[in-house]
Amino acid sequence: MRIYRKKNFPLTKIRRFLEPGPIVLVSSAHKGERNVMTLGWHMMLGFEPAQVGCFIWDQNFSYELIRRSKQCVINVPTVDLIDEVIDIGNTHASGKGPDKFEQFKLTPTPATKVKAPLIAECYANFECKLIDTSLINKYSLFVFEVVKAHVATSPKYPTTVHYRGDGVFMVAGRNVSHRRRFKRANL
Amino acid sequence: MRIYRKKNFPLTKIRRFLEPGPIVLVSSAHKGERNVMTLGWHMMLGFEPAQVGCFIWDQNFSYELIRRSKQCVINVPTVDLIDEVIDIGNTHASGKGPDKFEQFKLTPTPATKVKAPLIAECYANFECKLIDTSLINKYSLFVFEVVKAHVATSPKYPTTVHYRGDGVFMVAGRNVSHRRRFKRANL
Repeated sequence: MRIYRKKNFPLTKIRRFLEPGPIVLVSSAHKGERNVMTLGWHMMLGFEPAQVGCFIWDQNFSYELIRRSKQCVINVPTVDLIDEVIDIGNTHASGKGPDKFEQFKLTPTPATKVKAPLIAECYANFECKLIDTSLINKYSLFVFEVVKAHVATSPKYPTTVHYRGDGVFMVAGRNVSHRRRFKRANL
Repeated sequence: MRIYRKKNFPLTKIRRFLEPGPIVLVSSAHKGERNVMTLGWHMMLGFEPAQVGCFIWDQNFSYELIRRSKQCVINVPTVDLIDEVIDIGNTHASGKGPDKFEQFKLTPTPATKVKAPLIAECYANFECKLIDTSLINKYSLFVFEVVKAHVATSPKYPTTVHYRGDGVFMVAGRNVSHRRRFKRANL
């Protein structure tokens, strides 16, 4: 599998990679344990600071790791990882089980501001700190601030996968610029 | 512009159309006024009942209409509406201005459970009731329950548009089934 070469990326612009709605892989670590989960329910909640909301089911082992460590990494995979995305999503999730980095041959890379590892094979990695736990019980909603972003130097736009339910994925299609139609202040 | 022929759709399955992360058009109405806004920040928050979170900026005229009426319709446009999506998103939003249905030649259709109109030219329309106002001040986050869904009878998958920022859109690409790779219980 391809390992993307990455550079630091401005936090105020990470919406570019999450607003289109890709499936992401969330990595977490706490007290010697780590995990990876597949996640489709997320949204931007602000871009300065960069805030993201993620729905994390309480039956997933990652739920406790993230709640206790108050950290995670949101990794954006591309279509070449679709088998891993599916298999991780279909792994029995409530217990530890085998280490998912080893099981799925993913390369953990140290993050700079959190203890959870980056997934080297993903196009982008967003290091996150949990800033609001008050919506976890009611909505399983974790509110994170992205504190560091790593994004591949190429291609410009990742070929992400988007879940349509029922085992079907939409693969990101063509990218079209409509800049000329926008008001400058809205770009 | 095409007007989609639609049928009622099971509420527990509407995630199929929102989880992939398309840009949506939100219509609202209150006391003789109505509006349409372009919205990219939304997420599923539950599928039974079907709950959706939407980030609605307080500078948008729709904000007050939705907050006061406690209702809206989330409409899913396809790529043939991209000019309207952009122009509505770039319309000065804090005042009423001209009626957007007339200005953009969109066809308002009566909803069944809310007063906000459906947009006939959109692939899907989800009638929503505001069920939680407690996150509006802190996160501009409106939590809705979808109470009625109308979805086009064809095509099976809509060619939605997804915003990459900076005036660039990703157009939904190919749809691939990986059903055989899923555990049956997860489908």
